[in-house]
Parts: sequence; structure tokens; C-alpha cells
Amino acid sequence: MTVSGKIALYGVGLGPGDPSYVTVKAREILETADRLVHFCKQGQRGNARTIADRLVGADPAREIALVYPVTTEAPVDAAAYINPMAAFYAASAARLAAEVDNGRLVAILCEGDPFFYGSLMHLWRRLAPLYPFEVIPGITGMSGAWTLAAAPITWGDDILTVLPGTLPEAELARRLGDTDAAVVMKIGRNFPKVRRALAAAGLIERAIYVERASMSDQLILRLADKTDDEAPYFSMILVPGEGRRL
Amino acid sequence: MTVSGKIALYGVGLGPGDPSYVTVKAREILETADRLVHFCKQGQRGNARTIADRLVGADPAREIALVYPVTTEAPVDAAAYINPMAAFYAASAARLAAEVDNGRLVAILCEGDPFFYGSLMHLWRRLAPLYPFEVIPGITGMSGAWTLAAAPITWGDDILTVLPGTLPEAELARRLGDTDAAVVMKIGRNFPKVRRALAAAGLIERAIYVERASMSDQLILRLADKTDDEAPYFSMILVPGEGRRL
Repeated sequence: MTVSGKIALYGVGLGPGDPSYVTVKAREILETADRLVHFCKQGQRGNARTIADRLVGADPAREIALVYPVTTEAPVDAAAYINPMAAFYAASAARLAAEVDNGRLVAILCEGDPFFYGSLMHLWRRLAPLYPFEVIPGITGMSGAWTLAAAPITWGDDILTVLPGTLPEAELARRLGDTDAAVVMKIGRNFPKVRRALAAAGLIERAIYVERASMSDQLILRLADKTDDEAPYFSMILVPGEGRRL
Repeated sequence: MTVSGKIALYGVGLGPGDPSYVTVKAREILETADRLVHFCKQGQRGNARTIADRLVGADPAREIALVYPVTTEAPVDAAAYINPMAAFYAASAARLAAEVDNGRLVAILCEGDPFFYGSLMHLWRRLAPLYPFEVIPGITGMSGAWTLAAAPITWGDDILTVLPGTLPEAELARRLGDTDAAVVMKIGRNFPKVRRALAAAGLIERAIYVERASMSDQLILRLADKTDDEAPYFSMILVPGEGRRL
């Protein structure tokens, strides 16, 4: 940090969706920061901002929306995804730096936990070397999922593997077959492939499909009971561990 | 649930240690429950109860201490561990059931997230079939660790593997060599073995040692800089992912 002393930027984890799952510290920052920054897709409010709305209401004078230039389901290795996204994070960091330079306390709102697959990380790595930047952890989406599914995820000495659904089918199947418990993230259009990999690993009967855990429209069901192939990007599949019961 | 309606039991995640990392819902339950139950070792207060102390103070009239009959570092496959622990959970469940039957709202306090390697799970599986039992997720110890270490754990499509330090050395080394990011839990007396496994996987330089993250006496340092073999059971080692930066 080149500036010592008072925090200039917060990265604030807001958890999976239920506003009562926000931490005491996060709520305090929501109430006091000069700028509340959120990521969103064009024309949408974004999950983190929706949680904030329920705690402190909409507040256009404080809000800064960072609108993704492409969707998160574009092929992520393509230059058509990487180039505009890198430019977006660089421009967003410059925009927030200008706010800080004007004396404003800036809080960047994050769904889940900021340092676990968070978009915030791309701003943090640009801004944390320049300004006092504090990150507040949040309840992960997967913690929300296994809690609301009433599915303790790891018992005793269980190994947990967290897998992005973007992995190739054979690799998913191999890794699912070589762990005690699993969480498969980023389902979306990867769903048919993930389901085949779970079947290859003999895990369909143990798997639980979870969509928008702890939000008002959450959907939780045994994977075996989900007959269609529709799934939003932020849905996930849990394979709870079967380790030592005492 | 055989009793419908009002919650009788809560399992409350209190996060890694910093009282400001407790959720709004958890704090509300701490303030209102008739009984606050905590696990502890003989002669110690326990981490979950210590967090509660800082939020609502000690309150002997409400407190129930469940004292483990053996330490968590006993060999867990031995009957000398399993039998007394199973009897302890059965007796504890009966004791809490009696509180509920007497009309009291019972909250069981948990360090971290209750359904992620939590002792609570052994009470929950006995009591949730009998009474309305709600679990409140908490910030995991590992989220606290990677946040306070300023070490985002997963980028892009990184795979995360969570490994108990109790695993055999060769298995630890194999799995550490076959993942993008890792968290090794339950270090304690497994530390020399875990360190050798990290070395075998070529990960010593990337690894971070974290003890009591977010507590007043936290210790975070590069593993390469930790020269002794002393580590408490609840310390952990992080290997942050190196996936896609945008």
C-alpha cells in the first residue's frame, strides 16, 4: 500500500442471497460507504446489488454499476472474451481510483465470498497495490447451497473437490470419481456434460441440484429428479461426503 | 420434522473469529436464544464461545458447555476415540432434546460454517428428524484464511481441493500435484508430513501457513519462512490458484 492509514476501498462479500446472511461488518459498510459499486449484466441489477437493495434500499447517488461488456458464458479462452474483459477491468479500476482520489470511501459489492472465484479479484489486483484496500469475506454460494439443501458436505476426513463445470467431460468424470465430496460450479450450458460425468462416476443418486440457494426463488432437488437440461450459470451441483459419522 | 412450525434448534455458524464476521442472523440468534450451547475441550472456553463472548458477553444462565471426552488429535479410527465420542454426541443430543422439550429455544454455536467439517453435524443428524432445526451458514475458516492472507484462492476455472492433513503422505502429495489450488486443513501434528508432501509436489514456494486467521493472535507467513514444526490443529495451509487473470 502506498497510502497508509484509513481504508479507501472495501471488497465486501454479501453472501449467497439471504440479506440476513450478510455479516455485521458488511452491513456497516453498506450503511456508511460513499460509493457502492456493483457488477451486473446489461439491463440487470446483479445479485450483489439486489442483496444490498434489501438492506439499505436503492440509492442512485451512491451507486456505481460496472456493466460487463460480454456475458460470463462466452468461451473464456477466446480473445473475443479476454480482450474486452481485461479492458473493462482496467477502465473500472481507473474509474474507482478517481473516486478514491476525490476522497470517497468506495465499497465494491460481491455476491458470495470475494476471494473465491470473484470478479472483484481483477479490480483488487490493480488497486490494492495503490490504496489501502480491505476485503471482507462472505458466506460462499456453496455454503448457502449445502446449508439450504440440508446436506452437510464434509464429514470426518472427507476430501472436498470444487470443480468448474467448464472442465472437459472426461476430466470431470475422473475427478468426481476420485474425491469424497464435490461441488460442481458454473453449471449453465455445461449441465448435460456435467450430468454425464456424474453418471460415469456413479454419483447421480447422491447428487443434489441447487439453484439460487437462500434467495426467494431457490430451487433444490435431487439431480435424479431434474429431468430437463435448463440451468442458470450460477446453479451448482453438490455431492455430499459420506465420511465418519460419530 | 415431526414438530411443525417454530424453530426449536439453531445451528449457528459464527465464522473464523472476528466478531464482525458474524452474520446479522447469527447475532440476532445470539441475542435471543434461551440456551447458547458450545463445544469445548476440558478447561478451555472454545473458539465459538469466545466469539459469542465478544458479542453478547458471558451469560452463565444461558450457557451449556459440551466438553469433548477426548481430544481431536487422538487417532480417529481407534475405538478409544470413536466409542466415547459417539456416546458424547448421543448424550449431548439427549440433553438438548430435554431443553427443547422444556420449551427453550436452543442455539448451538459453531466456529466457521456448521456443515463444513462441523461437530454440530453429529447433533444435527440426531435432532433434525425430531425437531424443527435451522442451520445458519457461517464464514468458513478457510475463507477467513485466504482473505486475511490477501491470497485470492481460485481464479477463472481453477479447481480447488480441500484436504485433511490426516491423509497419508503419498496421497497428499499426489492430490496436491493434481489440483490448481488447495487448502490443507487439520495441520497440528501432521505438519511435518504435510510439508514433505508439499515439497514433493513442488509447492513450498507457493504455500502460505495460516494460524487463527482473523483472531487477535493470528499468524500468517510464507510456508518457506516457517522453520519450526509447531502448529495447532486448526491451522491450515493455502496454495492459491494461478488461473486466468483478466
